[in-house]
Amino acid sequence: MSEKYVYKFGGGFADGSADMKNLLGGKGANLAEMAGLGIPVPAGFTITTEMCTVYYKMNRNYPKELMEQVKSGVAHIEQVMGKKFNDKKNPLLLSVRSGARVSMPGMMDTVLNLGLNDETVKGLAEASGNKRFAFDSYRRFVQMYGDVVLGMKPEKKEEEDPFEIIIDAKKEEVGAKFDTDLDTDDLKDLVVKFKKLIKVKKNIDFPEDPAEQLWGAINAVFGSWMGDRAITYRKINGIPGDWGTAVNVQAMVFGNMGDDCATGVAFTRDPATGENRFFGEYLVNAQGEDVVAGTRTPQPVNDASVTGEGQTTLKSLMPGPYQTLEDIYLKLEKHYKDMQDIEFTIERGKLWMLQTRTGKRTVHSALKIAVDMVAEGLIDEKTAVLRISPEQLDQLLHPMFDPKAKKAAKLLGKGLPASPGAATGKVVFHADDAIEQAEKGEKVILVRIETSPEDIGGMNAAQGILTARGGRTSHAAVVARGMGKCCVAGCGDITIDYSKGHFSANGEVIKAGDFISIDGTSGEVLKGRITTIDPEISGDFGKLMTWADAARRLKVRTNADTPGDAAKAVEMGAEGIGLCRTEHMFFEGDRIIAVREMILSDDEAGRREALAKLEPMQKGDFFGIFKAMGDRPVTIRLLDPPLHEFLPHEEEQQKEMADEMGVSLETIREKVESLHEFNPMLGHRGCRLGVTYPEIYEMQVKAIFAAAVDCHKKGLKVIPEVMIPLIGTLKEYTILRDMTVKVADETKASSGINFNYMVGTMIEIPRAALIADQIAKEAEFFSFGTNDLTQMTFGYSRDDSGKFLKAYIDNGILSADPFQTLDQEGVGQLVDSGIQKGRSARPKLKVGICGEHGGDPASVEFCHKVGMDYVSCSPFRVPIARLAAAQAAIEDERKIKTVRDK
Amino acid sequence: MSEKYVYKFGGGFADGSADMKNLLGGKGANLAEMAGLGIPVPAGFTITTEMCTVYYKMNRNYPKELMEQVKSGVAHIEQVMGKKFNDKKNPLLLSVRSGARVSMPGMMDTVLNLGLNDETVKGLAEASGNKRFAFDSYRRFVQMYGDVVLGMKPEKKEEEDPFEIIIDAKKEEVGAKFDTDLDTDDLKDLVVKFKKLIKVKKNIDFPEDPAEQLWGAINAVFGSWMGDRAITYRKINGIPGDWGTAVNVQAMVFGNMGDDCATGVAFTRDPATGENRFFGEYLVNAQGEDVVAGTRTPQPVNDASVTGEGQTTLKSLMPGPYQTLEDIYLKLEKHYKDMQDIEFTIERGKLWMLQTRTGKRTVHSALKIAVDMVAEGLIDEKTAVLRISPEQLDQLLHPMFDPKAKKAAKLLGKGLPASPGAATGKVVFHADDAIEQAEKGEKVILVRIETSPEDIGGMNAAQGILTARGGRTSHAAVVARGMGKCCVAGCGDITIDYSKGHFSANGEVIKAGDFISIDGTSGEVLKGRITTIDPEISGDFGKLMTWADAARRLKVRTNADTPGDAAKAVEMGAEGIGLCRTEHMFFEGDRIIAVREMILSDDEAGRREALAKLEPMQKGDFFGIFKAMGDRPVTIRLLDPPLHEFLPHEEEQQKEMADEMGVSLETIREKVESLHEFNPMLGHRGCRLGVTYPEIYEMQVKAIFAAAVDCHKKGLKVIPEVMIPLIGTLKEYTILRDMTVKVADETKASSGINFNYMVGTMIEIPRAALIADQIAKEAEFFSFGTNDLTQMTFGYSRDDSGKFLKAYIDNGILSADPFQTLDQEGVGQLVDSGIQKGRSARPKLKVGICGEHGGDPASVEFCHKVGMDYVSCSPFRVPIARLAAAQAAIEDERKIKTVRDK
Repeated sequence: MSEKYVYKFGGGFADGSADMKNLLGGKGANLAEMAGLGIPVPAGFTITTEMCTVYYKMNRNYPKELMEQVKSGVAHIEQVMGKKFNDKKNPLLLSVRSGARVSMPGMMDTVLNLGLNDETVKGLAEASGNKRFAFDSYRRFVQMYGDVVLGMKPEKKEEEDPFEIIIDAKKEEVGAKFDTDLDTDDLKDLVVKFKKLIKVKKNIDFPEDPAEQLWGAINAVFGSWMGDRAITYRKINGIPGDWGTAVNVQAMVFGNMGDDCATGVAFTRDPATGENRFFGEYLVNAQGEDVVAGTRTPQPVNDASVTGEGQTTLKSLMPGPYQTLEDIYLKLEKHYKDMQDIEFTIERGKLWMLQTRTGKRTVHSALKIAVDMVAEGLIDEKTAVLRISPEQLDQLLHPMFDPKAKKAAKLLGKGLPASPGAATGKVVFHADDAIEQAEKGEKVILVRIETSPEDIGGMNAAQGILTARGGRTSHAAVVARGMGKCCVAGCGDITIDYSKGHFSANGEVIKAGDFISIDGTSGEVLKGRITTIDPEISGDFGKLMTWADAARRLKVRTNADTPGDAAKAVEMGAEGIGLCRTEHMFFEGDRIIAVREMILSDDEAGRREALAKLEPMQKGDFFGIFKAMGDRPVTIRLLDPPLHEFLPHEEEQQKEMADEMGVSLETIREKVESLHEFNPMLGHRGCRLGVTYPEIYEMQVKAIFAAAVDCHKKGLKVIPEVMIPLIGTLKEYTILRDMTVKVADETKASSGINFNYMVGTMIEIPRAALIADQIAKEAEFFSFGTNDLTQMTFGYSRDDSGKFLKAYIDNGILSADPFQTLDQEGVGQLVDSGIQKGRSARPKLKVGICGEHGGDPASVEFCHKVGMDYVSCSPFRVPIARLAAAQAAIEDERKIKTVRDK
Repeated sequence: MSEKYVYKFGGGFADGSADMKNLLGGKGANLAEMAGLGIPVPAGFTITTEMCTVYYKMNRNYPKELMEQVKSGVAHIEQVMGKKFNDKKNPLLLSVRSGARVSMPGMMDTVLNLGLNDETVKGLAEASGNKRFAFDSYRRFVQMYGDVVLGMKPEKKEEEDPFEIIIDAKKEEVGAKFDTDLDTDDLKDLVVKFKKLIKVKKNIDFPEDPAEQLWGAINAVFGSWMGDRAITYRKINGIPGDWGTAVNVQAMVFGNMGDDCATGVAFTRDPATGENRFFGEYLVNAQGEDVVAGTRTPQPVNDASVTGEGQTTLKSLMPGPYQTLEDIYLKLEKHYKDMQDIEFTIERGKLWMLQTRTGKRTVHSALKIAVDMVAEGLIDEKTAVLRISPEQLDQLLHPMFDPKAKKAAKLLGKGLPASPGAATGKVVFHADDAIEQAEKGEKVILVRIETSPEDIGGMNAAQGILTARGGRTSHAAVVARGMGKCCVAGCGDITIDYSKGHFSANGEVIKAGDFISIDGTSGEVLKGRITTIDPEISGDFGKLMTWADAARRLKVRTNADTPGDAAKAVEMGAEGIGLCRTEHMFFEGDRIIAVREMILSDDEAGRREALAKLEPMQKGDFFGIFKAMGDRPVTIRLLDPPLHEFLPHEEEQQKEMADEMGVSLETIREKVESLHEFNPMLGHRGCRLGVTYPEIYEMQVKAIFAAAVDCHKKGLKVIPEVMIPLIGTLKEYTILRDMTVKVADETKASSGINFNYMVGTMIEIPRAALIADQIAKEAEFFSFGTNDLTQMTFGYSRDDSGKFLKAYIDNGILSADPFQTLDQEGVGQLVDSGIQKGRSARPKLKVGICGEHGGDPASVEFCHKVGMDYVSCSPFRVPIARLAAAQAAIEDERKIKTVRDK
């Protein structure tokens, strides 16, 4: 038997069904499904997506059997519709449309009214009793055929369609204002002129043979799969080129045969609010594209109040067909168990369904629909959880500007939307000022050319951060996201002059102390104060998150360095801290002075003296964080960055530091020089500092355990998890683990309190992943530091890769920014095998991920799949991770169930 | 049955044998072997190295069964030697010595004359008929026991041994000049004083019980395994700490009982030249350490001509024992099939063998011995190949003094030619200074009165070693030969004054910091710096290399960027170029101007214009290299470093460049600024440049193929191998491969010449190794760039890791510098699996390594093991790689044979 390339539908049956989307495309599968349900669908057939692949493999040719199958498909349509293709009396006309697995709106070609020629047009005129309609259909067909099949549509958007030029000339000639003002003769003349144009431009005669027309249209649809527009769209949306498109050939029905005809689109529920009401628009005497094109204002299907006065609903205008439509939409929603986006046409009072698909919706709407459908018993809770895109959740969690107030404000410029939310405050240009003002209760926006680690305190004190330079992975962006602060980065529209204490933008000069507002979701920078509205975390949100929490296996922790962040994260549902960075604590207040004293010391004794000053402060930090987290686990990472990050690099600040510390500028310069590194990312940092300057880690570990003891004294039995960063060899780990154990023993002995604790490591150096079995023998937990692991596995410096990463993503060398979405193919191999090796040595090894990937839905799914125990992400991404974790678990469960059921 | 920890030997049998070195240590295994061969060996037993491990695991305690086994061992000695331990009449005395798998000369402790106390000393006096000898032995024993077992030897070299202070006082008291001038009563008194000292300093009584003495000594030997000296030695020589040492307990025999006694050391062939003649030194009436210590000048065993006038050979002095010695050495060499280093003692006319082991030798000697032994039919060619350490070959390949320059230099003196070679450098007198200066990049000669194990670090840091005292078997000589360092020993012509920091010789005063030159082959010490010339590679060398080439499977290529290097490498036996870096060519002459023009260009057109100037030059480069290599394969790597490396970074040079190019300084500064990278190692370089600036690689590929065409025109059918660096994703590779193929097709079309070529890639990014299967589908060859792969797998910047890498190696965190010797555990995993994955996709994938590891013997062995096709290294290391490759193949073959034979 030959391969089946053609699937028929219509007349109460279908070869295909909705679950055959991969083979029939979304449109074809749903048409088949509707036909199977007995819903009135114009008869047709679908040529499979596999044929598309064959077509390109055969160098744009078809296997012989396709010809036969298409012929049989046409016969099926003729039989069901009771019309004949190429019939001179009552001709069957066809539409030829693309349809890929996923919708690619407007990306591929469509041909309508196919089957018309100088003979059949007369039959159509006769059968419809509407000569003008027949010739209008004919001129539309010839134009579409020329544009689409013969490739006469200009590639550049600026150039006008050559057929439109002829129409315009005609309208001028006859004094017509609209196309509809042209009469039958005008249209007839247009057909002649169109054909001439085709002859002149393409040196071919317009094909009068409907079969030839059909094959031309099929070619055009398959060909459009490899068109520039389609390729670009696929690149942007990550759709593989080998999926191919199906071709849907279907009998034409007409919404434009007269006033007993109509066409419309509708949603089974409100796509903006999620309200459970049928919502749609239609046009009398029109074809489908007229509704979408927006040239005529459509009317509401059933509720005049939402659109305006003087409008007529379909319900009142055509109650019969409307009732059928209502029956069908209810049937469809019940059948698909989801909100549907449908298209219909009414031809002379008979309703035909042209399409149904899952409707796009806002996150607010998605939430309401999902929760409502559970209440209605349509879907279960797990299905509801799958209905919300985790990425969209972000919109629900941040403050927004009051839209009216925002509209009134002057736009100063636009930068990159680096960290979502909205913030308003007085401009400050220096971190110190931000801290000072914030202490006075002022709300400030920190405006910098770019930020550096010295600015962290100021960033924390500010409502939001605006930088003139840097991308979405710049220091400002990363830190702001971690803090959940709104940030607009790389806003080239503003010019900052620190010395004058102002910035200029869009003809305005904004001085320190002036109010601005920034929108981290859109990247807008606005003049003046704008009122914000806090996110409304509605009952539906809470309900859905409860269902999500019940479904997921992965725990969700947070990355938090302060008691405030920790508290925020708990509010967001964090179940622990997966990464508490200690370096930020080193910058705060006058700690930096002690840190610098330590760095300037020539010997261990001097370093210990300086560290002794830091110890009580660190202890206080940890105590605060433990308290905020209650009985939730807290993983504390020991110092990570190289020491030179704690020294100023500009002469001005070096002088300040020299004065402050009573040493010579030369001393500081020399120290900065001696600590300089060519590749600090691969330098003297992390546990390498811990090994060479053991006193630093010793101080930190002492502070951690002392804080734990204080907690125990207050009845809070915290179990600190000490995490050693940047391990690459087993011995680094054992040396520092032994030190930690020794300090713990000493603390227990001196305090008389017997607390518990864990020691573990980051896996962020490729070598650590490779020898994870060795390390796991000694380490109680792993936390994959996929930021650094990505840098080293790819050999990309995060700070420098901007120079080529964008080009790499644009050219499809990388499918996504590997710093945003974990590269499963490469880095993921190390994570996966690292976990397997680790668990082979220690079956109960606790494994998590910290770093930005922990809050990225696709990466969270991967973390679930490879068997991690938890993910950790910034506080504001905790709900996103919770939802993503739940979806991964549910999908996993369903896959397993599917396999089991087979 | 309990574990066997004690292996007996002597009396014509042995529990152990020479192949049990891992368990019995080198010394113990060879003593057992000799005993088994019926060679007269003082009876004894060996406590295994396993016991050493157990000892440390049990926190320096022993399992019960050891006590029993040691008792039984002592009984065995008593029985064979016909004496009783702790016998008051004719007491058995024991020696207790360490013995690890590999010799660690002078690193661990030894106790002699054990078993003496106030009672047994009388028995010894009686039995030996030599009261003075008995008490001299007793005072030596008490001193040694105090020093070694009770730890009274001062750690600092400058401090005198407290027992020596007492001896000096005694000598002054009685007016004695030498120790030998002390009479029996003096020695008796010394024993009393020594015991008092022990009581005062250690608050214990000297143990009179021989059994207690024995356990004390065993403890001391096991304890010395973890002594500082031993740990340092192991670190330098890469000996694992968990190997442990064995303890050899053996009956004492005395070379110092009178003039019918002697002791000596000998080599079965000349260890310096390899000449097949018995070569050794002895002392009459002495104990073994007297020969090694260099305090008395030893006499030649059989040939007076080599040492000096007025000396008596053993052959003439004691013909009977000498004949026995000669029979034994011949038997041993035949048995071991290798040159032996032996120790013997003659006690009252009876010869006892105390040790045999494979003798250390210079590489010249090793070469001659190996080639001679093949001629003698003792060993086969493959065994001969295994006899040369590839690392030592270096000595043959390095320069010697220019004879003319040497003639012109003033001779300061002449010492013993202790380790061949030539060295020139600044004088230093202390090991620490040598290390310090060497770290600064200075070349130094370490000048010492004599050396001791504490000096090892300094010897390693120095270019050569010169001593005023000691023979060719002195510490300095043995260690220097082991290190392959040039050494002149026992140069009595120089007088060293450490306190003044100078030495005087031949009327000159040479201060620390002055230059001298030493010739380890002639023993000459010369004033000033002397130029050196390349060595002449002898016939033996050529013969051995032919055998090596016949044995190896791995090809050996070279890293060469110029025709000159290429020619040199071919001379050294290179079979192709594995890495031709093109960036060096960009700096030559005025090319750098064109390169900078290219970098300063704002657009592609400008860049192409500048590149067009470079193209003919690049073509010339490649043509020259192809010509030099003849029909050998040449792999050319496209541009690798980031563009900023081609711009000057200092203002002075930026100004020069600005003037030269007629642009403003500001322009250059801005470009430097815009190209600045935080981590250039992980930045915009390698194929990332090739993707973003395709015109650069295009120019290079054009030049390569144009040069190939020129070669073809001259009849040289080169097959260039185009290598794309820094690939991390498949698509980078395919984009650049497609470009290369396109250029090749164009070149073929335009030239009409149909040349062959290959396209492949470096595997140097961890991700590339992880997706090697994907890449191999498209790439024709892999070259592992293990320099970068090591940097990224470890997360170590080679330029910055100096700050911690030394500490890491010193602390045993790393067993070797991973940039010198490939880290098989981590990086090696990526290499191994990368090859496997690659070959799974393309079974005939050609695989090599370029970068420094390609010339490191241990790494070459790894490359063989994982199935590479070739290694590539710098020209001078090519012979080393050839030999290492041969050894790997032979050892592999033998291992396979062993398995098959089982």
